[in-house]
Amino acid sequence: MGNYDRATFRPRTWHDATPAFHDGGDTPRAYLERCLETIAAREPVVRAFVVLNEAGARGAADASTARWRAGRPLSPIDGMPLGIKDLLETRDMPTQMNCAAMAGNFPKRDNAAVRALREAGAVILGKTVTAELGGAHPGPTTNPFDPARTPGGSSSGSAAAVGAGMLPAALGTQVGGSIIRPAAYCANVALKPSQGAIHRGERQTTSQSTHGMHAGCIEDVWLTMIEIARRVGGDPGRAALTGPTAPPAARRPERLIVMETEGWASLDAPSRATFEALLDRLAAQGIAILRRDAHPLIARFEAGIAEARAISAVITGWENRWYQRAMLDIHPGGISARGVAALERAEALSLADYETALALRAEAQARHARIAPLADAVIALACPGPAPLWPGDAPGAPLAPRPTGDVAFNTPSSMLFAPAVTVPLLAVSGMPVGVQIMTPPGEDARAMAIAGWLDGMR
Amino acid sequence: MGNYDRATFRPRTWHDATPAFHDGGDTPRAYLERCLETIAAREPVVRAFVVLNEAGARGAADASTARWRAGRPLSPIDGMPLGIKDLLETRDMPTQMNCAAMAGNFPKRDNAAVRALREAGAVILGKTVTAELGGAHPGPTTNPFDPARTPGGSSSGSAAAVGAGMLPAALGTQVGGSIIRPAAYCANVALKPSQGAIHRGERQTTSQSTHGMHAGCIEDVWLTMIEIARRVGGDPGRAALTGPTAPPAARRPERLIVMETEGWASLDAPSRATFEALLDRLAAQGIAILRRDAHPLIARFEAGIAEARAISAVITGWENRWYQRAMLDIHPGGISARGVAALERAEALSLADYETALALRAEAQARHARIAPLADAVIALACPGPAPLWPGDAPGAPLAPRPTGDVAFNTPSSMLFAPAVTVPLLAVSGMPVGVQIMTPPGEDARAMAIAGWLDGMR
Repeated sequence: MGNYDRATFRPRTWHDATPAFHDGGDTPRAYLERCLETIAAREPVVRAFVVLNEAGARGAADASTARWRAGRPLSPIDGMPLGIKDLLETRDMPTQMNCAAMAGNFPKRDNAAVRALREAGAVILGKTVTAELGGAHPGPTTNPFDPARTPGGSSSGSAAAVGAGMLPAALGTQVGGSIIRPAAYCANVALKPSQGAIHRGERQTTSQSTHGMHAGCIEDVWLTMIEIARRVGGDPGRAALTGPTAPPAARRPERLIVMETEGWASLDAPSRATFEALLDRLAAQGIAILRRDAHPLIARFEAGIAEARAISAVITGWENRWYQRAMLDIHPGGISARGVAALERAEALSLADYETALALRAEAQARHARIAPLADAVIALACPGPAPLWPGDAPGAPLAPRPTGDVAFNTPSSMLFAPAVTVPLLAVSGMPVGVQIMTPPGEDARAMAIAGWLDGMR
Repeated sequence: MGNYDRATFRPRTWHDATPAFHDGGDTPRAYLERCLETIAAREPVVRAFVVLNEAGARGAADASTARWRAGRPLSPIDGMPLGIKDLLETRDMPTQMNCAAMAGNFPKRDNAAVRALREAGAVILGKTVTAELGGAHPGPTTNPFDPARTPGGSSSGSAAAVGAGMLPAALGTQVGGSIIRPAAYCANVALKPSQGAIHRGERQTTSQSTHGMHAGCIEDVWLTMIEIARRVGGDPGRAALTGPTAPPAARRPERLIVMETEGWASLDAPSRATFEALLDRLAAQGIAILRRDAHPLIARFEAGIAEARAISAVITGWENRWYQRAMLDIHPGGISARGVAALERAEALSLADYETALALRAEAQARHARIAPLADAVIALACPGPAPLWPGDAPGAPLAPRPTGDVAFNTPSSMLFAPAVTVPLLAVSGMPVGVQIMTPPGEDARAMAIAGWLDGMR
């Protein structure tokens, strides 16, 4: 049993702290010190961080304090302490990707999104633990609600730091399920935006990956993401995240399509029952709940994502194989056995395998577009029940295929290039279980607004 | 006056050399030595190379010689000596981009396309000079047909090395006109492929850039490009270059659309007359030549590319600004005054400017798609007349805005994501002037086949 209780859990939030910065009743520096206190208390068990830059953060927080006092904050997130997943470059801390081959890597450059955050005044406090190279091989981070369980991955540290109240927000990245799943396991709110909507900087290797934000509330997710997009835009050639600079107002949906995914069949009974109870509550409020049997197009949509994990694995494996093999050439032994096994599976693929997977992805996207007019959004579990126990690899035993949990509920939004927002609506066995809202690509603000409405149903 | 004469110019070619490798009448090692002799003779004036790896190349050529002798070449390009533009990473030579900020950069990794070439047995002989960071600030390379003239840029060294007969082929890259223009100035055949058709490896920064091949003949361009694509495919999420492994057979077009571009108005009279004479020759052979007045859709197509330079400058400037500013932060003074001026123009852009340019590009692409059914291909000059004189920057004087020549005839294919092939059909003032064939995206093999037919019209 974990110790999560939705009724009493209070995440650390930012947007509601800033009014007191104007009159000096609170300051970004004091806010930072409160984060550091929580980190000091919880980090020995949670292990969310690779490195902290406390001195740099204190200097940045003091500068922000002065700007707020002068009535000239750079943005609504001026002074906000943030963690950065250790896949992304930062000018003042190494970028080591939880990978031996990257040990000591220190390019002294900010990823485009990190640069934008600093330009908005945000305080970059530390690098958060990632699964190796953003894959499956886990780091040392534990779940903030039960240290015997995984925090999820690959954005393990970002999710755990927010779940433990160490930070109001942390940047993550997702290729398969690396933002939404750990966020759902750690009671975060998080946005995996439309493909291309946030500039990935040096991380342009894969065709279905995004930066996204983990935070304690809808408001802080939106404020951070839109401030990034306003400054550096989207990926080369892609539309940037758009919407108001203020968080979208909560919006009650009239119709929701339930997305079951390939994870549905193996879902544990309590998680399924809890989710069904949520759907019943929504239906009782007059919201139409549409499932496979409601429309043939919904059935076709589900069929299009029925092998989302395998399709995504082919695409991402092919796209990673050039640079990962080059890494191994330079640093023999520099990638874990689990990582090398994934690379070798990718190297067995043909170009035809890859192009077929791209075609299947495009078909699934076309099927998603067809269901858009039927409802305001898609609703689904954000993870297959509570975070699983993770005892670690046992010497001599086969490696766990999914040590950070199953991506089955996450690969659909990734392969559909669709925005997905998770909110911590449910609890099973004392552990948080997220629920996600997905909309068509480009409709990130709508997904946030509907997720915000659900989150307000407490 | 340059010393180019189409009637007597004989480029160095590869495909016709390989039959003799089977019986030992010739060998890849001997072929390499012939290249090195030409390099020794011409490099002091042409200055195409940043660095040569002669020892590595000789070792690779010997290994290739043994494979041919054993009847087991790795591919039709096994043993082919190649130059690599110094924007692209190579495991055995530094990658310095003709930029002070990149001095000493040596990642010891092969770009994806370079890796593929080595897997096919190609011999990577050296890094060729690029204009700084692939932009406008030129390197020391001179035109092989007149050392007082620019070789074009930014793939200056690749174009000049092929034009001087130092190499059968060299890899270049294009964002605006960086492959086709220098190739046209240096009597190369070259392919700028469809956007995304060749994996750019670490060079994913810009939305309209491609790798492409400079060579002495159509056959060698195709052989090298298709061997890359077969091994590493296209960019993440994009369709790879497709077609037969053998060079496409020459194909006589029935109808050609003349693309004038914004360069037409300022074209010098001899170049215009020479191009018109070519069109007359084609018409005399019964090929329909369609111009603006032949169809309103052609007029709309020309209007869509009438500001191609400005649109492309906004797109590329915005896309480069994050990483170039980060470079300058790390290496103050590390980019030329010309490069910094371009960066500062880019930093004055808004996200709305960028997104508007993307929209204009998409409209131009839609207009290109509409003219596709009207003809077999588009024909155009590949450069605005012969390579201009380039005396170098004069201290205290304004910097030349286009020291490597005008991109006006090249930005259209770049912004249209369309394959473009240049062949050295014309000569003006003793200098080569290329003619290009452009087809819709994905139709690279067709563009090669039609260009091959034109090239055979001698």
